[in-house]
Amino acid sequence: MTTPPEGWEARGRPPSWFRRFTFAKYAETRDFLDGVAALSEELGLHPQNINFATTHANITIEGADQQEPGEAELAFALRVNALAATRAGP
Amino acid sequence: MTTPPEGWEARGRPPSWFRRFTFAKYAETRDFLDGVAALSEELGLHPQNINFATTHANITIEGADQQEPGEAELAFALRVNALAATRAGP
Repeated sequence: MTTPPEGWEARGRPPSWFRRFTFAKYAETRDFLDGVAALSEELGLHPQNINFATTHANITIEGADQQEPGEAELAFALRVNALAATRAGP
Repeated sequence: MTTPPEGWEARGRPPSWFRRFTFAKYAETRDFLDGVAALSEELGLHPQNINFATTHANITIEGADQQEPGEAELAFALRVNALAATRAGP
């Protein structure tokens, strides 16, 4: 089983990974979401669900083919963390 | 009270407007979301919440200052409808 990276929580069976990202204002949330979209294109992997409002974005990642998240999802989640770290916290 | 445009449902008090948009594939969902983001920038108004996955996007619009949606939100929702109409259906 692949352990989710920092800040992500494994939920359900098979597990999906969940993390809530918060931002100071809408423009930062928007930048983050644009970054996630670009990352999805680059890595050919997109979250199962994204829910966002003015100052937060909740992201859920599932594994492919109803398997649990693996190395590809780990790489993706780490890059998402890096995106958030360059922008706002926590 | 402003009546929501076609396809939108008024929910709650004060009412927010909700509509689910469905698409044939992720690329169409992505195009739609990019369009909504551009529209938000153009009109200076963004949805209270957007929840999206591979082939759908659920959008919730609230009025400003905890009022019910008005003319600005109506104009926004109509433009969102137009965006969806130029892409996929229903």
